[in-house]
Amino acid sequence: MRTSLCEVLGIEYPVLGFTPSEQVAAAISRAGGFGVLGCVRYNRAEDLDAALDWMDANTDGKPYGVDIVMPAAPPKEGTAVDLDALIPLAHREFVHRTLAELGVPETADAEPGGVLGWLHSVARSHVDVAMGHPIRLIANALGPPPIDVIDRAHQHDVLVAALAGRAEHAVRHVYGGVDIVVSQGYEAGGHTGEIATMVLLPEIVDAVGARVPVLAAGGIGSGRQAAAAIALGAQGVWMGSYWLTSAEYTLGGPNSATQRALLAARSSDTVRSRIYTGKPARLLRTRWTEAWAAPDAPEPLPMPLQNLLVSQAHQRLAAADDPEVVAMPVGQIVGRMNEVRPVARIMAELVAEYQETVRRLAELG
Amino acid sequence: MRTSLCEVLGIEYPVLGFTPSEQVAAAISRAGGFGVLGCVRYNRAEDLDAALDWMDANTDGKPYGVDIVMPAAPPKEGTAVDLDALIPLAHREFVHRTLAELGVPETADAEPGGVLGWLHSVARSHVDVAMGHPIRLIANALGPPPIDVIDRAHQHDVLVAALAGRAEHAVRHVYGGVDIVVSQGYEAGGHTGEIATMVLLPEIVDAVGARVPVLAAGGIGSGRQAAAAIALGAQGVWMGSYWLTSAEYTLGGPNSATQRALLAARSSDTVRSRIYTGKPARLLRTRWTEAWAAPDAPEPLPMPLQNLLVSQAHQRLAAADDPEVVAMPVGQIVGRMNEVRPVARIMAELVAEYQETVRRLAELG
Repeated sequence: MRTSLCEVLGIEYPVLGFTPSEQVAAAISRAGGFGVLGCVRYNRAEDLDAALDWMDANTDGKPYGVDIVMPAAPPKEGTAVDLDALIPLAHREFVHRTLAELGVPETADAEPGGVLGWLHSVARSHVDVAMGHPIRLIANALGPPPIDVIDRAHQHDVLVAALAGRAEHAVRHVYGGVDIVVSQGYEAGGHTGEIATMVLLPEIVDAVGARVPVLAAGGIGSGRQAAAAIALGAQGVWMGSYWLTSAEYTLGGPNSATQRALLAARSSDTVRSRIYTGKPARLLRTRWTEAWAAPDAPEPLPMPLQNLLVSQAHQRLAAADDPEVVAMPVGQIVGRMNEVRPVARIMAELVAEYQETVRRLAELG
Repeated sequence: MRTSLCEVLGIEYPVLGFTPSEQVAAAISRAGGFGVLGCVRYNRAEDLDAALDWMDANTDGKPYGVDIVMPAAPPKEGTAVDLDALIPLAHREFVHRTLAELGVPETADAEPGGVLGWLHSVARSHVDVAMGHPIRLIANALGPPPIDVIDRAHQHDVLVAALAGRAEHAVRHVYGGVDIVVSQGYEAGGHTGEIATMVLLPEIVDAVGARVPVLAAGGIGSGRQAAAAIALGAQGVWMGSYWLTSAEYTLGGPNSATQRALLAARSSDTVRSRIYTGKPARLLRTRWTEAWAAPDAPEPLPMPLQNLLVSQAHQRLAAADDPEVVAMPVGQIVGRMNEVRPVARIMAELVAEYQETVRRLAELG
């Protein structure tokens, strides 16, 4: 399983793991992969700084990276308060009515602004903080980072990765200075396009693979799937959803409603919708997503307004501790997330199944 | 590339090719694969009989199969005329208005009933005819065939294949006597579900692979994709779209508008819609499909009414010879269908790329 990406990143297995949990990210790096910490949930720069301090102390010197949400074109924005004024009253009323209908209790301590990481100014503060740590990679889930961020990363010998849902986007990324392209297939969790990995990945490999490594995201959780990705021309895999049911994932508390919902879900229990951020993203299908799919539901707002609209709702949904109403991005691989395992075991089983698969293919001839 | 399915079917490569063209089906079998003739377009039993006579004379004694569209539950139906009365006037008016807006000329010779193969009674006549030829396999694109058809096939030593878009459907198929399951991923052309091949295929393999061979359909056109499918546990691949731009495919005439449209299309130029048959099917995105996606368009009718509604329109669209208004089922692999090649060359290139991929994987270790 040793592709040239392993040399580039200084890792044992070309398995990159995106996760909002610093415990999981560190465990992935310790297990021979490459942990990428999602920064969007850190409203305060000092909280991200503390998380990266913790990672520096807990990765045994293994490399890791960060994922920062930076829209390609900086949106016009003022403060969170200014943006709040742009949210229509009817949308707010729909959210309040829906939460009441779903039996979601009010919470006293919900932060008014919610998750601010989708805002351009906050994302910039994340870059500033991350550059103060020994990160090896900055990824951007919304296409290529701004050109000055790419230049700054390269000055610090930090590689830049960007997700692409179409081959033409990948070409544009590489032209803009991106070092690693992540092919994000339709089946992936979070922001995703409509072309499935089986078709998208070789298209992106053929378009840019001679210049940069391409990683496969979307539908990857097992060694067979990793082998399929390498067969299609990937230099490695990018897994996000799969770590959400790892033992180290404790956001939301142990045995949280979200984790219970994920463990029970089948591959058909996801939906691609704009209700999470304003852009199409794959989420676990729950009574919350179904309410937004009803004929009387309003159209989701554009980014960043939609996330501001629902961010307090997300906090209330999380506090409700009800598996039927969680709001959670996850890919179709959720159907195979059926038990809680430590990251090291997930990695070991993936590598073993990968090697067994390659042996099986070789024997078939 | 020699899986145990090769022994079962008596073929060289585990590449099954579904096609409405007897020339293409025969060429696939001659090239070492297994041609499966789609029967739905044969309104008259004697026309199918003649096509199978031609195949018997042109497959060099190699095995082949047929695909017949049989709804699992026989619909209530009378004659085509009775069914016609169930189509709302507003739907007919929408079709007429849309064709006029798209500049599609009237045709003198369109058959009123259009394609009848979706009707239960016609499908039964296809089974009767096919059983009189040395077929090795009957496939059904709409789930499991009726139980008496399965029994009759088995009495004639004919294997039965059925498509599945979910693991639970595959389990039901095998329980009902199906011998081969085709995992039909989201990216496939024609009738398709929402789970992509990367996730669906290993789920179906784990659910039924110990009892029956599983084939991968959806997104397969190259040797890398075939290798990925085998890595995921398939015993072979089932390709449909890819033959539509083969040299032997002459339905619609040489250099037809449909073939020109397919050669030009990108992987993002398809849409999943109910407008072709009443059930969700992936089609080439054209001005025709866009018209049905407009806010003023009616909801498509259920099967078999929708196909009766649009079948004359399909004949007019075909006669218009305009690449912008063709009505054609095709998968996301259409983005890689960029030149016209003989079937034998497609097969040889696929096999060579497959073997190169397996070597590459083995060398990586």
